[in-house]
Amino acid sequence: MSKNALPKRSENYSEWYNDLVKRADLAENSAVRGCMVIKPYGYSIWEKMQRALDDMFKATGHTNAYFPLFVPKSFLEKEEGHAEGFAKECAVVTHYRLKANPDKKGGLMVDPESKLEEELIVRPTSEAVIWSTYKNWVQSYRDLPILVNQWANVVRWEMRTRLFLRTTEFLWQEGHTAHATADEAIAETKQMLDVYATFAETYMAVPVIRGVKTANERFAGAEDTYCIEAMMQDGKALQAGTSHFLGQNFAKAFDVQFSNRENQLEHVWGTSWGVSTRLMGALVMAHSDDNGLVLPPKLAPIQVVVVPIYKTDEQLAAISEKVAEIQKALAIKGISVKFDAREGMTPGFKFADWELRGVPVRLALGERDLAGGTIEVSRRDKERGEEGAKTVQPIEGIAEYVETLLADIQANIYQKALTFREANTVRVDSYDEFKTIMARDESRGDGSVGKFVLAHWDGTSETETKIKEETKATIRCIPLVGQFDSATEEGTCIYSGKPSKQRVLFALAY
Amino acid sequence: MSKNALPKRSENYSEWYNDLVKRADLAENSAVRGCMVIKPYGYSIWEKMQRALDDMFKATGHTNAYFPLFVPKSFLEKEEGHAEGFAKECAVVTHYRLKANPDKKGGLMVDPESKLEEELIVRPTSEAVIWSTYKNWVQSYRDLPILVNQWANVVRWEMRTRLFLRTTEFLWQEGHTAHATADEAIAETKQMLDVYATFAETYMAVPVIRGVKTANERFAGAEDTYCIEAMMQDGKALQAGTSHFLGQNFAKAFDVQFSNRENQLEHVWGTSWGVSTRLMGALVMAHSDDNGLVLPPKLAPIQVVVVPIYKTDEQLAAISEKVAEIQKALAIKGISVKFDAREGMTPGFKFADWELRGVPVRLALGERDLAGGTIEVSRRDKERGEEGAKTVQPIEGIAEYVETLLADIQANIYQKALTFREANTVRVDSYDEFKTIMARDESRGDGSVGKFVLAHWDGTSETETKIKEETKATIRCIPLVGQFDSATEEGTCIYSGKPSKQRVLFALAY
Repeated sequence: MSKNALPKRSENYSEWYNDLVKRADLAENSAVRGCMVIKPYGYSIWEKMQRALDDMFKATGHTNAYFPLFVPKSFLEKEEGHAEGFAKECAVVTHYRLKANPDKKGGLMVDPESKLEEELIVRPTSEAVIWSTYKNWVQSYRDLPILVNQWANVVRWEMRTRLFLRTTEFLWQEGHTAHATADEAIAETKQMLDVYATFAETYMAVPVIRGVKTANERFAGAEDTYCIEAMMQDGKALQAGTSHFLGQNFAKAFDVQFSNRENQLEHVWGTSWGVSTRLMGALVMAHSDDNGLVLPPKLAPIQVVVVPIYKTDEQLAAISEKVAEIQKALAIKGISVKFDAREGMTPGFKFADWELRGVPVRLALGERDLAGGTIEVSRRDKERGEEGAKTVQPIEGIAEYVETLLADIQANIYQKALTFREANTVRVDSYDEFKTIMARDESRGDGSVGKFVLAHWDGTSETETKIKEETKATIRCIPLVGQFDSATEEGTCIYSGKPSKQRVLFALAY
Repeated sequence: MSKNALPKRSENYSEWYNDLVKRADLAENSAVRGCMVIKPYGYSIWEKMQRALDDMFKATGHTNAYFPLFVPKSFLEKEEGHAEGFAKECAVVTHYRLKANPDKKGGLMVDPESKLEEELIVRPTSEAVIWSTYKNWVQSYRDLPILVNQWANVVRWEMRTRLFLRTTEFLWQEGHTAHATADEAIAETKQMLDVYATFAETYMAVPVIRGVKTANERFAGAEDTYCIEAMMQDGKALQAGTSHFLGQNFAKAFDVQFSNRENQLEHVWGTSWGVSTRLMGALVMAHSDDNGLVLPPKLAPIQVVVVPIYKTDEQLAAISEKVAEIQKALAIKGISVKFDAREGMTPGFKFADWELRGVPVRLALGERDLAGGTIEVSRRDKERGEEGAKTVQPIEGIAEYVETLLADIQANIYQKALTFREANTVRVDSYDEFKTIMARDESRGDGSVGKFVLAHWDGTSETETKIKEETKATIRCIPLVGQFDSATEEGTCIYSGKPSKQRVLFALAY
């Protein structure tokens, strides 16, 4: 851990984020441009996300499989919209051999004789490879649905990268399903959006808006893109997951047909859906504070840390004995706990270290506590000095107390994020007001916070593009029914004055 | 499932393997040369392997992390031996953008302006990338050891590929550890070899020989390569896992130094160790028979299948009710069970289908069973018609019976493989005999089986190379003490007649 304090969110949100990700040992930049190293502590959070998501995928009938890393160039040419959207900035494999460089001792060079007849693209997403495979898996309606997911790495050659939020290589899961009817595929698309929303809210403690993307923001090759959008602590939006209804686009591009119950050939209907290591960025930016990470208990690799307060070895021995009992009682409840008995560090240093890493509950135990049968309990979700941040509890029954506290922290983190989002979501009916809000959001040095703006829009790409050009704000989604009380009210577009059927969600976004 | 029978092992072992992998829905070749698609059923076995191995890695103090897919070419030049061994046949990324092809409507072409200054290699293994990262993680002995593993895909441009056994892209785990002393690193190397051997024997039910590779067969960049070698049913050897003591080679290549307790700078000591989807091939080839897969219960995605035997809907309803009870009782014991109530298929077809897929236990329940309170139990590890392959048991207590039976099957599969290996391991003291054995092994059409040969060797690479040229047999390993009764006896080399300190293990190999 560095001795310097983190930058403050109110002063430089972006620097605060970058520093926090590095100092909390979540990830770092690698020697390879735009690629990150996910460090053990960060990866252990990602593993918890994976496990929870994977269980949810399986509970909804999906199985995992694995498809090749490489996509032949010609495959990307098959679906026109997809080629437009996805085949541009990508890593291209052109050769398959290196040889000794005659001009440089110990050096290597590309062997020109190993040039590939057809270039291979490192997958930016796997629709092309997977639909070319499904062609062989599907003959009859009996072969449908196919409900497959894969956990994989993908590469998109990004010019400006940020740890977790936008990296050249990232980890994700991509579900790819095939169905006999449009209705079934649409139901799957919506089901997986619900799975993502439930995961975000239940595990990550991040409230999300469920919606549909406009044509401009839609996935290349999809008929409809559903998404969940979350508000970060600077008021910006972060797209946390997408679920696409692909119609018959990929089935047509890759000639995937099935004979239906009437023995007629039809093209298959498809969906795809994914979340990525970007969720790590969302998790950090949604909850953490100027002292470090704030992790929701359900995703914290270490849920409880115990710090001994002692001067002599005898004191440490007595404390350790009691801690062993506490650890055992917590372990029985499935609570992960670490006893920080590192030597040569003050309790204050350890407190700050675990705060930085976002451990939800800290227990501190000294000789006086031991004598009195008490233990100091600190909860990470409250600010230092805030009421209830630190209490003294009887050691007797501490495991039950901590179990309840963890559930309370999980709920409180979610509620704080929800309250924050609600306080920063506004209905706007004039373009002047809209511009003022989006302009204020541009500079973050004053500690001000951006807004989610619900405004009327005339439904055209032209208006959307102009608003984006003038304010940098984008339509994050057309919220689904039930997401905002009166989102489906009619009105007039803030930009063109033309009729609008419902308010849509505008924001500056990551 | 195809209607045709599998080729017989005794007639064409290689074709039997390829067909089985495809028909049992484990994997198939993809449109991308040398890359496979791991299908859902195959992947679910791999997931079970991953989970078991990952738990063992964590139990021995390791954590997971993730490092970049790409290796800058210059990194591969840093460790000389490693460059020799690994930097040759690999996928080379030279460009980062495609653009519309003006000569072909809808076509794409590599944008020549996107040429990379330095080529990137798709990792064939990650020592180079990881040691370049460890340089920043290590300053003092307090930062050691680093005990990190990653689950990842790697690419080696193989000319001749076979599903699971040798593919251009494959999945694996690679552990990379860094230590303050040689002793500690060597202990780690041996510990991980033991983890692999335990996994192979306990989960895969595949007995393995633990040994050390000769210099010829050693990992490029290692001081010592430890391995486990397994015998397949054709008598050939398959290397199932390797654990490398890297000495200070990578630390020196990437300048990774630490200040020791005496405050002096030293280079760090390293290990790396890995197993891959090749284990799937070993699993298939070690146990399966002419009717299909034989899966050890600990890795079977479905441990028990229940097939109803009925003519009327009423019969099916009564059977289903009883099956629900049985399923519940098995689920409580953590046994995975599938009720195959598919319509329009005969019980015989279903039996063959589940045999092909290697489900360890099959229960069949008909009306007469129901009346008599009995159920038919078939165990997949015995051949059709073999004594005990099929028995009738009381339904009462069937869950307990199946639980015991699964443990018995796991043990029996291991014992069969061990007996087979022992029957086909010979001590050979003349080169003529050696040549006869290895020659017989070449043709497999006659149903003959190759041998593991324990023979004396003079310890030189020259002899090893000549034997390989003349017989195709390689030294699979120098067995560790305790692997064979008198392996450490002294003798004379079968080839050169020079003195030898111990017998080594020769075989034809995958």
